[in-house]
Amino acid sequence: MNNMKNLMISIDAMGGDNAPHEICKGAIAACKEYDDINITLVGDSEQIKKCIEENPISENSRISIVHADERIEMDDHPTLSMRKKRRSSMRIAMEMVRSGEAQGVVSAGNTGAIVAGGVIVIGRLPSIDRPALGVPLPTVNRCTFLLDVGASVHCRAINLYHYALMGNIYSQKILGIEKPMVSLLSNGSEEIKGDEVVAEAREMISKANLNYTGYIEGNEIVYGNADVVVCDGFMGNVILKFGEGLVSAAHSIIKEEMGQRFLPKVGMVFMIPMLKALWNRFNYEKYGGTPLLGIDGVVIKAHGRSKSPAILSALKTARNLIKKGGVEQIRSELE
Amino acid sequence: MNNMKNLMISIDAMGGDNAPHEICKGAIAACKEYDDINITLVGDSEQIKKCIEENPISENSRISIVHADERIEMDDHPTLSMRKKRRSSMRIAMEMVRSGEAQGVVSAGNTGAIVAGGVIVIGRLPSIDRPALGVPLPTVNRCTFLLDVGASVHCRAINLYHYALMGNIYSQKILGIEKPMVSLLSNGSEEIKGDEVVAEAREMISKANLNYTGYIEGNEIVYGNADVVVCDGFMGNVILKFGEGLVSAAHSIIKEEMGQRFLPKVGMVFMIPMLKALWNRFNYEKYGGTPLLGIDGVVIKAHGRSKSPAILSALKTARNLIKKGGVEQIRSELE
Repeated sequence: MNNMKNLMISIDAMGGDNAPHEICKGAIAACKEYDDINITLVGDSEQIKKCIEENPISENSRISIVHADERIEMDDHPTLSMRKKRRSSMRIAMEMVRSGEAQGVVSAGNTGAIVAGGVIVIGRLPSIDRPALGVPLPTVNRCTFLLDVGASVHCRAINLYHYALMGNIYSQKILGIEKPMVSLLSNGSEEIKGDEVVAEAREMISKANLNYTGYIEGNEIVYGNADVVVCDGFMGNVILKFGEGLVSAAHSIIKEEMGQRFLPKVGMVFMIPMLKALWNRFNYEKYGGTPLLGIDGVVIKAHGRSKSPAILSALKTARNLIKKGGVEQIRSELE
Repeated sequence: MNNMKNLMISIDAMGGDNAPHEICKGAIAACKEYDDINITLVGDSEQIKKCIEENPISENSRISIVHADERIEMDDHPTLSMRKKRRSSMRIAMEMVRSGEAQGVVSAGNTGAIVAGGVIVIGRLPSIDRPALGVPLPTVNRCTFLLDVGASVHCRAINLYHYALMGNIYSQKILGIEKPMVSLLSNGSEEIKGDEVVAEAREMISKANLNYTGYIEGNEIVYGNADVVVCDGFMGNVILKFGEGLVSAAHSIIKEEMGQRFLPKVGMVFMIPMLKALWNRFNYEKYGGTPLLGIDGVVIKAHGRSKSPAILSALKTARNLIKKGGVEQIRSELE
């Protein structure tokens, strides 16, 4: 699979706030950028055709459409909707991975349903009972891979241990870090900190063949004091959203303050190159695409608000994971 | 007690990274600012005397010293050190509250020991089994009171319910919000989100006589979409530190980028008024002083890195809480 010239990625064209238009645009952009990928857009074929006709390019020959007349809504119950909406775009896109028609799937839809679909439709890797969503977070010194950011709510020590193993492989093989520093999120750096689950996970992780660097606190994440940070999905979700909120708030505060003052406006002109550099550094869209690890296939969740650049980025992550055989790497690490 | 002209606050002069010098300076500053407070500095009397002699002011008459020849270190075990170091500055300062010699106590020392001391030395309010540390967080639209930020690790639903009641009173009586919007931190805003403990707490809080506004997500905290946000101490601690880390990282990144470019330096001159306004808005020191709620006395924790302005601010919080009878208000709310 790793050496194949042509990959096939299925994409849930109806998932997310800007579906299907931005999803289709992202798929077209990916075909323009990479000549080795084929994409199947799954969803309302009329709407999808219209989007593609608006953006006619020679690469369209590598885009195909599979019709689906249902869609999973953002507020649908994750497991129930995945079980009952059998003709939904998300489920059909996932079934293409199970059947081998596609090597990976991307969706910007309901997160819970993506996780449920990964488990129910595609299946878990042996020994994994909870998959994890991982995000490469831009920080001051490096890109830190944080997992789980919301596949599960809470978890047991063994799950945190699996997250550490999977995060380590992802960091090595996909993000290219030779010997990733792996750490466990806690409420203090001393060994007596952490709750029972975290303390038990520390025991397991510190004995594994990992470059384990101990507990990490919230403020240290920001400085990128680790390559991989492991935590439960409740905490990871709150941190990720808090961080996104701060970045977007900083943007709106600067705009507001600027509106009230004349001098800053003058200053702003001079500062534009710096602000562009900062934005490039912290732009989450660039890193877009959250892999669902622990599933027997490549599943990438894109942000619900994704526009075409974020979809392109999620497709890029999927392509990368497929080409590098990420799932097989994780499978063999877990054995 | 609320109408007394002269309050007495005891302060652990040996707690924190900058003790005793900055603690003494903060105490002197508080006496200068408020003519109704007396302060007892507890710690190594030689060192304290020296600090005070370096800053001779007429207000010194309202400062007294109680000698303590032990101190609780930052890495001491919280409960053990509080039980065993009976002559430590922190314990003696707390005993002054228990005996009624002081109406409140401030320490910038070991957080766990402050919580243990509150419980062991001063005692909990009836019906409270876990006290909570609360922090007024500066956000885009308002000051949000977040609790617990680290008094406990995890907790049961009843504890989260108590935090909601205590946070509501603190927000009303101390922060002056008429009808505080109280919310519960979760991994999504829909009712099906949250783990079992959070879901059970939601049931209890939504039935209480509170202006409960539902689950709040990480990104909404930043915008100040609630006056009171309730969560367990593990999560609260991680969020608080992550936020502090981001503020300090933003500062260092701007400096770094500025060093590399000439134009931004020119722009910076124009932007200084705006940056000052931003800093005033988000400067944690201004809000300094974290009340330990649920204890039968006023206990204020200051940040371990506190310099004199943060100590002044913690003393101000203690004074405010004493004068407004905050502890009595919470006691009657819990009954």
